[in-house]
Amino acid sequence: MKKQTIKEILQDYKKVLHHDITVYGWVRTFRANRFIALNDGSTINNLQIVVDFENFDEEIISKISTAASLKVVGEVVESQGAGQSVEIVAKKIIILGDNFTEERDKTILQPKKHSLEVLRDQAHLRFRTNLFGAVFRVRHAVSFAVHSFFNKNQFFYINTPVITGADAEGAGEMFGVTNFDLNNIPRTEDGEIDFAQDFFGRKTNLTVSGQLEGETAAMGLGRIYTFGPTFRAENSNTTRHLAEFWMIEPEVAFNNLEDNIDLAEDFLKYVIQYVLDNCKDDLEFLDKRFEEEQKTKAEKDRAKEGLIEKLQNVVAKRFKRVSYTEAIEILLNSKENKKGKFQYPVESWGTDLQSEHERYLVEKHFESPVVLFDYPKEIKAFYMKLNEDNKTVAAMDVLFPGIGEIIGGSEREARLDVLKQKMADMHVDEHELWWYLDTRKFGSVPHAGFGLGLERLVLFVTGMTNIRDVIPFPRTPKSAEF
Amino acid sequence: MKKQTIKEILQDYKKVLHHDITVYGWVRTFRANRFIALNDGSTINNLQIVVDFENFDEEIISKISTAASLKVVGEVVESQGAGQSVEIVAKKIIILGDNFTEERDKTILQPKKHSLEVLRDQAHLRFRTNLFGAVFRVRHAVSFAVHSFFNKNQFFYINTPVITGADAEGAGEMFGVTNFDLNNIPRTEDGEIDFAQDFFGRKTNLTVSGQLEGETAAMGLGRIYTFGPTFRAENSNTTRHLAEFWMIEPEVAFNNLEDNIDLAEDFLKYVIQYVLDNCKDDLEFLDKRFEEEQKTKAEKDRAKEGLIEKLQNVVAKRFKRVSYTEAIEILLNSKENKKGKFQYPVESWGTDLQSEHERYLVEKHFESPVVLFDYPKEIKAFYMKLNEDNKTVAAMDVLFPGIGEIIGGSEREARLDVLKQKMADMHVDEHELWWYLDTRKFGSVPHAGFGLGLERLVLFVTGMTNIRDVIPFPRTPKSAEF
Repeated sequence: MKKQTIKEILQDYKKVLHHDITVYGWVRTFRANRFIALNDGSTINNLQIVVDFENFDEEIISKISTAASLKVVGEVVESQGAGQSVEIVAKKIIILGDNFTEERDKTILQPKKHSLEVLRDQAHLRFRTNLFGAVFRVRHAVSFAVHSFFNKNQFFYINTPVITGADAEGAGEMFGVTNFDLNNIPRTEDGEIDFAQDFFGRKTNLTVSGQLEGETAAMGLGRIYTFGPTFRAENSNTTRHLAEFWMIEPEVAFNNLEDNIDLAEDFLKYVIQYVLDNCKDDLEFLDKRFEEEQKTKAEKDRAKEGLIEKLQNVVAKRFKRVSYTEAIEILLNSKENKKGKFQYPVESWGTDLQSEHERYLVEKHFESPVVLFDYPKEIKAFYMKLNEDNKTVAAMDVLFPGIGEIIGGSEREARLDVLKQKMADMHVDEHELWWYLDTRKFGSVPHAGFGLGLERLVLFVTGMTNIRDVIPFPRTPKSAEF
Repeated sequence: MKKQTIKEILQDYKKVLHHDITVYGWVRTFRANRFIALNDGSTINNLQIVVDFENFDEEIISKISTAASLKVVGEVVESQGAGQSVEIVAKKIIILGDNFTEERDKTILQPKKHSLEVLRDQAHLRFRTNLFGAVFRVRHAVSFAVHSFFNKNQFFYINTPVITGADAEGAGEMFGVTNFDLNNIPRTEDGEIDFAQDFFGRKTNLTVSGQLEGETAAMGLGRIYTFGPTFRAENSNTTRHLAEFWMIEPEVAFNNLEDNIDLAEDFLKYVIQYVLDNCKDDLEFLDKRFEEEQKTKAEKDRAKEGLIEKLQNVVAKRFKRVSYTEAIEILLNSKENKKGKFQYPVESWGTDLQSEHERYLVEKHFESPVVLFDYPKEIKAFYMKLNEDNKTVAAMDVLFPGIGEIIGGSEREARLDVLKQKMADMHVDEHELWWYLDTRKFGSVPHAGFGLGLERLVLFVTGMTNIRDVIPFPRTPKSAEF
């Protein structure tokens, strides 16, 4: 790329000091008819442009206002002001685009503070705010760290299908995909919908997970990961659910449950450390914002750690590994449970854990990320490996402070007969998954994997609290604008 | 990762020479009851395990056959045979999974040559063949190179929505997404389908491109790229079309058409060079296969270059840049056209180019990748920048030998009034794209971008000829198995 970004100019300013350079960007502010804060999206930092208005046409000066876009030629000089190393003394300013002031004033680009809700309604413009610039640069860094980690560790990226004929896992929560004219759906002779006439010749849905297909790939390539969109047609209007979100699912041949937990811990620490190393400016901004947010809360609801501090602590500590059975003991004996402070009281071994229980373990009891493993088989999916006790499966969940479950995974059931029995018990159609069963027939191997929702991780890293604010264009019930 | 892959063992064999190590993998062949070729998917190369059958139970020996999976403990020794640096003298062999021999013999895992069609029907098993192992490792390398290139150049990865309410671009070719019970679709009082009652409260489709949303992100973040699935409900049963494929779409604020062409050329060369550098073994295998394929063809249809040679040449040469107008002149004056050898004769300026014309330019006339630019406005999309001649738009297509168009892009129309006029002329609904028009209102800037279908590029790099063989689970008319 021939053009220099503002990030490059600020970082390597010694290379351009006292030279004339050309810069491009949008006006964030124009102070005293003299100082333009110019931003091009490459960094949260603005480049200061100094304008001597006597050298420029009044018309140009009049068009320099928040949101206008400029091309500026000028000399790089050491800055007199605080907070910046260099500034540009403008020699030439070209207005690339005005800001249509009147219309702008109805948008979030007007220079004042806007609520996150209002920003969400203008998701196409919120990229130009400091907050969402930071969030989406961090989201990029998280994504790139994911690919880097897996590539470094000899995983292969696999694109599992988005449109799928299989609905073994997510029946009822899946979106249908069709090419039918809904006003004129073809029927068979006995009046059923004739899916044989649909585009794929069968009923198809949007995937809820690439795991089962991913397992088949791991049975040939060894180590694979998926990273793609997944879908839930769940009518949940919460700050934690999206109908369309991005999921990362590694799957590793020859790994057992312990290897899987090691992988999850290494992976999370790598990604978070990468963000700490590569997103300093954005994290500092988000850290300050997080601190301000805490001040608006009641003392008891405030986070114990700052954002950056929290990330550093997660990387530094070994995650606490606790069996489900131990966790139930801890919860049963907790003051909270005995005093009836949980909304869902913990009564006995076998109950599924609620978010409040997970957060108690992480935030109060252990004060550390926690990995729970060996869950009761009844509350976990059919493909998880049955343990020797015949009661539990080799499942694992990684629980994070403030977020709860961030990763869920397991060693898979590699024994064909046990898998078939579990499918029968749990009413999963064997015939539909003939190809999945094949992987247990021809050189079946122990293997394990997990799933991580990208947006949950970005929430954790940015300190944002609504999942709609960490994906560019959220898809939620009754909302698919853009 | 604690376990060593076969790739690591073969690469860094000096570290483990004369040590006992543990390896895992699938049996590719078992020769003379003595030599196991073991593969774990990490590389196309097998690790030779030497078995002295006198040291092992007959039962174990009897279970070692193609497709079975093993755990082997043994000493690493220098290999006596050709083609490998080291081999393992087995001390302990554990059969992880038998191969269910009888059923195996109905699958592609039986040890004989299978057609690509048959392999496609068992897409869940083809990862275990040399060919598809190589293809999908290369696909991974291409994907990783894409992310690396953009990250290095300060682009941010943006996930544009898969489910979209906008259908401005792809009307008619889009898949519908619905949560309706198709047997019971709600209707409004006047008998219309009541999409207000569907999950998103409106009619929704699967995206055909993330470009328009990507442009809004570039208008804040500067340089962005998408890399995600896109969809076409086109009933094309060809070797070049998929209903679901992965697209890469960078978009750059402040770039003009020339910058865009530079970016496309740099990008393609980076990715191809990365594969040359990082996939040597797989490319050599694919190169040989390509050569064999050529021998089955008539002399005149054979490729002039070998696969690796072709990739090296693309990286070495500067792409030829030719305007559409020049290209038409060349075609009009070509022997082929004059002698009526084109299926679609070129008659005048303004006609759209067919694949045969593109390939003539690339393979016969220039013998080089070609970038065509400045196309007649009538044959290109509404969002492309109108040139000063009022006749052409600032579009560009990159044409590659054997493939034709591999990249299509343009500088975008940044002027609100011109864009609105073009939308009106081309019957694109302005109201539906209110958010897209907003980007031209508030600090509009010149910008440009392009789209590249990942599978087209993987075809080019691997020398495969059917697009269904470079994506794990192809989605095509009447086919959505797995």
